[in-house]
Amino acid sequence: MTTTFKRMVLASRPQAEVTPDNFRLETVEVPALQDGQVLVRNHYLSLDPYMRGRMSDAKSYAAPQPLDETMIGGTVGQVVESKHPKYAAGDFVVGMAGWTELAVSDGSDMRKIDTTHIPLSAYLGPVGMPGMTAWYGFTQIMQAKEGETICVSAASGAVGSVVGQLAKLKGCRAIGIAGGKDKCDYVVEELGFDACIDYKAGNLRADLKAAAPKGIDAIFENVGGEVFDAALARTNAFARIALCGMIAGYNGEDIPLRNVRQLLTNRITLRGFIVSEHMELWPQGLQELGTLVATGKLKYRESIAEGLEGAPDAFIGLLKGRNFGKQLVKLI
Amino acid sequence: MTTTFKRMVLASRPQAEVTPDNFRLETVEVPALQDGQVLVRNHYLSLDPYMRGRMSDAKSYAAPQPLDETMIGGTVGQVVESKHPKYAAGDFVVGMAGWTELAVSDGSDMRKIDTTHIPLSAYLGPVGMPGMTAWYGFTQIMQAKEGETICVSAASGAVGSVVGQLAKLKGCRAIGIAGGKDKCDYVVEELGFDACIDYKAGNLRADLKAAAPKGIDAIFENVGGEVFDAALARTNAFARIALCGMIAGYNGEDIPLRNVRQLLTNRITLRGFIVSEHMELWPQGLQELGTLVATGKLKYRESIAEGLEGAPDAFIGLLKGRNFGKQLVKLI
Repeated sequence: MTTTFKRMVLASRPQAEVTPDNFRLETVEVPALQDGQVLVRNHYLSLDPYMRGRMSDAKSYAAPQPLDETMIGGTVGQVVESKHPKYAAGDFVVGMAGWTELAVSDGSDMRKIDTTHIPLSAYLGPVGMPGMTAWYGFTQIMQAKEGETICVSAASGAVGSVVGQLAKLKGCRAIGIAGGKDKCDYVVEELGFDACIDYKAGNLRADLKAAAPKGIDAIFENVGGEVFDAALARTNAFARIALCGMIAGYNGEDIPLRNVRQLLTNRITLRGFIVSEHMELWPQGLQELGTLVATGKLKYRESIAEGLEGAPDAFIGLLKGRNFGKQLVKLI
Repeated sequence: MTTTFKRMVLASRPQAEVTPDNFRLETVEVPALQDGQVLVRNHYLSLDPYMRGRMSDAKSYAAPQPLDETMIGGTVGQVVESKHPKYAAGDFVVGMAGWTELAVSDGSDMRKIDTTHIPLSAYLGPVGMPGMTAWYGFTQIMQAKEGETICVSAASGAVGSVVGQLAKLKGCRAIGIAGGKDKCDYVVEELGFDACIDYKAGNLRADLKAAAPKGIDAIFENVGGEVFDAALARTNAFARIALCGMIAGYNGEDIPLRNVRQLLTNRITLRGFIVSEHMELWPQGLQELGTLVATGKLKYRESIAEGLEGAPDAFIGLLKGRNFGKQLVKLI
C-alpha cells in the first residue's frame, strides 16, 4: 500500500494564456480513513474547457478554483478501501475528485457505475458530462426535427461529436465545424456527419453556405467568435441556438458578435446553459447515451495523456484545439 | 365628395440615412367602388421604426417596400362608403392602409373598432401594434415576476412605455433607458417607472448599476448596440431578453455586441420576435390593454405631425429619436 500520492494544484492564475507554471505537482500523504469515508484510486482524469474559466477569478457562473488546492476535475476510478456502507473495495465510481491520483470522499460526490458494457473512460465522455451537455442542448434547446439542418462547432470534440450523432439518429442534416483536415475527415467518415468545415482553411462562410444550402435551423455553439458569426449568418427563420461554450475568448479577449441582427430578423431563440443545473434530466439522458454507446451507435474518440505530470501540457493543448476527441489523463 | 386624394410613395431606397427625397407625394383619383369594397378616410397614420427596414432591399423577415407604391403603414380611419356587407359608412376601422389619405379595401385587412371608451388614435398605440408588441414581449418572453427588475430601452416610446407600465402593474422594479432629461422625467414622473437613465448623459453603465442594484432579471431591447451591451452587463443569472428592435443599426452600420459572454455565463434566454406572427394572442392582449387604457391605468403620449406632407420629416425624426411618445401623422 502506497503511503503518498501526487496531486496537481493551481499555483497561480493565468494573466493571458495558460502556462505550465500556473500548476504545481505536489506529493502528499494518504490520510487515515475515517468512518463513512471511501478511498478511491483514480484511473482517468477528464480535462475540459470549463477549467480555464475556473482558473480566473473573474465573475462567472461558478466560484473560482482556489489557489494551492487540488485542481477541479471529473474522474473515474476504483474504490481501494471503504468505511462507507454503500461502497466496497473494487467498486468502479465516477465523481469529481480533481487532478489527483488518490482521493478520500464521503461518498456524496460520486456514484457507482457499471463497466460491463460501457468502458470506464466513457463515463467521462459520451456517458458523462460531455455527453449530457450534448444531449441536453440537442433535446431541450435545439429541438431539431427530421429533415432540418443543424450546425455544431468543435465537432470532433467530446460534446460536438455527440451532438452531430444525435442529430443523424434523428434524421437531420448534420454540419460540423472543426480545425484541420484530419478532424474534419473523422467527423464525416467515422461519425457520419453530412459535412464538416475546416475553419482553418479560410473559407468558413462560403464553405458553410455550400454545406447548408437550405440554411441552418439549429446551432450548438461551443466556440463563439468568428465561427459563431458564420453560422448565425446562415440561420433560417425561427432557428434555435444552444450556447454552450466560448473557448475562443477564454484568454480574456472580447470577441464581439457581429451578426447580432440575425437574432432579430430570424426570430431566433438562443439559450446559454450549464448542464449541471439540470440534474433532473441526467438519469434519462445517461440511460439513452449509455444504450447508444453499449450498442455501438454512438462513437467517440479519446486523446490520452500519461500521468498527472502530463496534465498541464494536455490541458494547454486542449485550449489550443490540439486534442482530437475527449482529452483524458491516464493516472494508473 | 372629393375626387382626388394624396398618397406618399417610396421614390428611392436610402443609401445610408433616410432623406426627404426618398419619398414622393402623389395626387391620385379616387377609384369607383366595386361590390365587396370599402372606401376609408384615414384619420391617423402610424410611423414606426420597422418602416426603415422595409425601405431597404436587404434580406429581412419581410419583403421590401416596392418602389413607386404607397408606403406601408398602420392607419385608423372611418368608412366613407361601403359596398361590403360587414361595413357601413361611419364605422371606425384600424388597418394597414399605408401613407395615404383615402384607401379602398376589400375589408380583409382591417377591423372595426369601438371608440366609446378608447380614443381612435390609441388603436395605433397602446391598444394597437406597439401595445401588443410590449404585451407579447413582457408576458411571453420576459415572464417577469413580482420583485424582479426589468430594463427597457426607448422607454418613452410607444412600445417601451407600455413594457414598463405592465412591469409596474406586475410589481416589478422598472428601469427605463431614454435619450434626454425630458424623456427620462416623463418616464419616471408620468409613467411611474422607478428610474430612467439618459443614455446621452454619458454614464450609461454607472447609472444603470446605480438604478439596478440587484441586477437585471429581464430586458426588453428596442435599440441594440451600446445600450443593449450596458444592460447585458448588469444581467442576473437566468435573465430573459425580448429582442424587439435594433434601431441604432437601421442605417446599415454593423453594431457588434460585446458582452456576448454574458449570454453564456448568466444562462440567458434571448428571443427575437415579430408580434404579427403571434396573431392568436392579439384578442387576449388587446382586451387587457384596452381595459387598462379605458380605465386610465395605462398612460401614453403622442407626437402628432400634420398632414402627409409632414410624414417624411416626422419619420426621419423618429429614426433619430426626436419624437416623444407614439409618432402619428394626422390626416384629417
